[in-house]
Amino acid sequence: WRVGEGWDVHALVPGRRLMLGGVEIPFDKGLLGHSDADALLHAVTDALLGAAGLGDIGTWFPDTDDRFRGADSLRLLTEAAAAVRERGWQPVNVDATVIAQAPRLGPYRSAMQANIARCLGVPADAVNVKAKTAERLGPVGQGLSIEARAVVLVGRSAAPR
Amino acid sequence: WRVGEGWDVHALVPGRRLMLGGVEIPFDKGLLGHSDADALLHAVTDALLGAAGLGDIGTWFPDTDDRFRGADSLRLLTEAAAAVRERGWQPVNVDATVIAQAPRLGPYRSAMQANIARCLGVPADAVNVKAKTAERLGPVGQGLSIEARAVVLVGRSAAPR
Amino acid sequence: WRVGEGWDVHALVPGRRLMLGGVEIPFDKGLLGHSDADALLHAVTDALLGAAGLGDIGTWFPDTDDRFRGADSLRLLTEAAAAVRERGWQPVNVDATVIAQAPRLGPYRSAMQANIARCLGVPADAVNVKAKTAERLGPVGQGLSIEARAVVLVGRSAAPR
Ligand SMILES: [Mg+2]
Ligand SMILES: [Mg+2]
Ligand SMILES: [Mg+2]
Repeated sequence: WRVGEGWDVHALVPGRRLMLGGVEIPFDKGLLGHSDADALLHAVTDALLGAAGLGDIGTWFPDTDDRFRGADSLRLLTEAAAAVRERGWQPVNVDATVIAQAPRLGPYRSAMQANIARCLGVPADAVNVKAKTAERLGPVGQGLSIEARAVVLVGRSAAPR
Repeated sequence: WRVGEGWDVHALVPGRRLMLGGVEIPFDKGLLGHSDADALLHAVTDALLGAAGLGDIGTWFPDTDDRFRGADSLRLLTEAAAAVRERGWQPVNVDATVIAQAPRLGPYRSAMQANIARCLGVPADAVNVKAKTAERLGPVGQGLSIEARAVVLVGRSAAPR
Repeated sequence: WRVGEGWDVHALVPGRRLMLGGVEIPFDKGLLGHSDADALLHAVTDALLGAAGLGDIGTWFPDTDDRFRGADSLRLLTEAAAAVRERGWQPVNVDATVIAQAPRLGPYRSAMQANIARCLGVPADAVNVKAKTAERLGPVGQGLSIEARAVVLVGRSAAPR
């Protein structure tokens, strides 16, 4: 067994789509970044890579690389999961929190969970996404950004290939 | 085995009691919220629900529900623990950090740990509470809020009922 | 098995060395604190103590104690690991993130990982250090501070001594 953690933040700006957990959420702003800036998927990807001792998302998918401009972060997570499996680790469960002052994320939680579970190849009930506000405090509370946090447990699936 | 994480923040304001880990702490301000605003217990509750794949505290105990106005968060954590057990999961251990610029929390750590352990039905030494300041940085460092973070490990106790 | 988490922040100021993961990193500022203010090692130490139910770094190594003025945090982590082992726990893996707007930390990640692994007595591949910016948001994003986060998994090594 091994545990990993991830954290991410992106600025919330006009003129971008808001992608969280691979779900496009109707809102008047979106997250700014080189890829689709999906903070939740980035935190989960980092936690997964971290659990398997495989570095971090910035090393795997550099934001200076044109291949990842506007990238679908579901694809990045799927690639990370494949790398984790190749080293003989199997994702066991994911728990994550999205911290956003707005919009309300409750209605999108199950779609996010299903997306993440599909990328990882785990049952839907092995992925849990929680939502919080920042109680109007700090950049997240002022609506300037959205943060995400995640933990992942992995187990040995087989000898590394 | 499954892992969960939780995070919470509440604003620190005059005219409220300061409840952390179910302990009333003498201070000239308290945490603002619909319930007793116990950020530590909320983070632990979210981590526990998250480990068991049971959603989040906001879904279980909505802050729009009059039943939870001024609620004792020890009761909420106890209810969450019962739900986790009903699904066949048993809490193994909890580790958490409270981040507050003031007051000093060291003297209250063991009482907080005992409260959490009792709610979860685990031995006292399976719960660890840590305390930090924010080094005068950000809203917590300016004394405007208190944050808490938690991780929880659960194991299979039995077939789900 | 038990899980622990840790978090730390220190202000970034002129006239101090920048120590992260026991590595001195060339930069025009450094972290302010009583010890060497190595936020990464402090987060890992707290996560390790937390997993073993041994309290927190502030209780073990008080910043009011002259013995720890300017202390090498690698030594503190090594002492914490010895205490964890004495209680019959063995570190399994560590995953951590350093959040800094600057400097770039990628080139130093493996040296940090090797330092932490040596303190804990675990193989180098059981320690993973990730690096992020704060996207110019909040105190970390403004270059006023550096934060670190960590999770640790421990397992039973033997009966407590
Ligand atoms: Mg990102
Ligand atoms: Mg709360
Ligand atoms: Mg420190």
